[in-house]
Amino acid sequence: MLKVLICGNIVWAHKDVETMISPLAEVLNLSSMSRAEFCQDCKPGGKYSEIMGIYRHNSSSSKIGTYDAELVHSLPSGVKWIAHNGSGYDQIDIEACRARGILVSNTPGAVDDGTATTALYLIISALRQFARAEKNLAGGDWKRGLTPAHDPSSRTLGILGFGGIGLRAAELTRGFPMRVVYHSRKRAVNEPEWAEYYADFKEFLEATDILSIHVPLNMETCGLVGEKEIRTLRKGSVIVNTARGKILDEDALIRALADGHLYAAGLDVYPDEPKINPKLLTFPNVTLLPHMGTETEESQHRMEIRALQNLQDYLKGGKGKDIVPELR
Amino acid sequence: MLKVLICGNIVWAHKDVETMISPLAEVLNLSSMSRAEFCQDCKPGGKYSEIMGIYRHNSSSSKIGTYDAELVHSLPSGVKWIAHNGSGYDQIDIEACRARGILVSNTPGAVDDGTATTALYLIISALRQFARAEKNLAGGDWKRGLTPAHDPSSRTLGILGFGGIGLRAAELTRGFPMRVVYHSRKRAVNEPEWAEYYADFKEFLEATDILSIHVPLNMETCGLVGEKEIRTLRKGSVIVNTARGKILDEDALIRALADGHLYAAGLDVYPDEPKINPKLLTFPNVTLLPHMGTETEESQHRMEIRALQNLQDYLKGGKGKDIVPELR
Repeated sequence: MLKVLICGNIVWAHKDVETMISPLAEVLNLSSMSRAEFCQDCKPGGKYSEIMGIYRHNSSSSKIGTYDAELVHSLPSGVKWIAHNGSGYDQIDIEACRARGILVSNTPGAVDDGTATTALYLIISALRQFARAEKNLAGGDWKRGLTPAHDPSSRTLGILGFGGIGLRAAELTRGFPMRVVYHSRKRAVNEPEWAEYYADFKEFLEATDILSIHVPLNMETCGLVGEKEIRTLRKGSVIVNTARGKILDEDALIRALADGHLYAAGLDVYPDEPKINPKLLTFPNVTLLPHMGTETEESQHRMEIRALQNLQDYLKGGKGKDIVPELR
Repeated sequence: MLKVLICGNIVWAHKDVETMISPLAEVLNLSSMSRAEFCQDCKPGGKYSEIMGIYRHNSSSSKIGTYDAELVHSLPSGVKWIAHNGSGYDQIDIEACRARGILVSNTPGAVDDGTATTALYLIISALRQFARAEKNLAGGDWKRGLTPAHDPSSRTLGILGFGGIGLRAAELTRGFPMRVVYHSRKRAVNEPEWAEYYADFKEFLEATDILSIHVPLNMETCGLVGEKEIRTLRKGSVIVNTARGKILDEDALIRALADGHLYAAGLDVYPDEPKINPKLLTFPNVTLLPHMGTETEESQHRMEIRALQNLQDYLKGGKGKDIVPELR
């Protein structure tokens, strides 16, 4: 019988594992307590030596670390599919997977609602200065020192990266509505009539009041929003990041908050999670969440099922649907 | 020349006062430092004795108190219009105005966006447990102790009071979307196809996961959501109040939070503002704002203009548009 490894937590989809995967393959759960032990377990004769596919979740990295080149090259030779649970897959070395002939899938779509809702929340909180207002109330100060803020409808939302999450975040603001502009490498094939494409990054930034970041983290996007880009936004702008911390130069962000170039910011992600730059905590106009984008029962169940579906499709037909762009 | 009184702050619309009102009437500003002085100033020979109309804002109450029966009966006999700036007009004794032959207008529409956005924010914060998450991060705890919360799309939104603000709040959730049910005295004439009317209050509560309150405060609505109504909501429900504190029985709310009947709550209003029941501050699953519904430059400017428009229409043609329902 085929064997697969569940590498990381399944929280909501235990029954789905039984109905979707167990009829097709023997399911092994990660029990290695360290990277060294895991690599040993993957060697010929080890308990994972015969696995063909892997369901992976970032929670496995607390035991065996990320799927960097070393780890990928230690995987048993039969492994041809890693069904990653998550939209971002920056914890997996895609080039190493390519070299090993391993395909990697993620869970697009399943995370869109959760993450886009988080972006919407941060946009409202930043524009309306609600984080500051909540602290005011909790400190017994009611409205003292608060000044009237801004309605979202008065501002232009700039979506950087118009994939599933970026599009969904833009859709969630249609009720106000906000003017929506977007920038991505290519014009979206499913571009809504109300969204304006800016091919030029600088012109996009110049048109934007609220910059919401929705690109994946990779070599091209690391540091994509830096000093120059932040200063290209007009004075009084807002930055919201629910993608990955390293896409935004945090020191440049802090400078722009300190000198008043930015009106506010809302962050769900940081360059060195779970560490937080303590300077961020000193700004009353910044809303800070501990990477909550997909922290809902419904989203996490949907993500687990989507990852299991990719694994099932691979087991049944050799190929799952959601192969990451670099390997298509 | 006609005379009018600006009773309370104009913050954004100074130029609009000049262009809209000054050509039609002499504009007096409230300078009385106490209620007694104000009543004196309204008497024959006093500086306000000849005023015909009043622009009123709640900020005047810090000097002269609310427009209760005593104050209304002290107004000069020529006053036939009070153009109140605000959606809620519970600081004005409408029956006393009726007895004096004074019409009162409010500013419907102008407040819808600001208040509905606040309701949307509280709905997201309560369902996603973001207030707790922000405190976690600020306290150095990152995600420790947080459990996955809920996507809005998994829940039914119950709108209590389907006027301008209630409808707008429902519209703002269409992006998710949430199932929307509503209860009001009468079925809305402009009912959207996606909103379900419940004529029966109890059946409405039984169908609701997230109760969002949007009725005005008056004799009928004071205490409308009490112990019985809260317990009629299913276990795990959420209550959001951006209307007036006294509509919701706060002690009953606190009991339902304490024993876990409610999953969370989001409040912008309180029975005895700016005082806060300190028990509310002890619940990590409650988001508390200091009455920020319309605290934006854009909303406040729009409200000032709408109130001035009512005053202008009265001065020009004897009647403004937004007469409060009780006096229509």
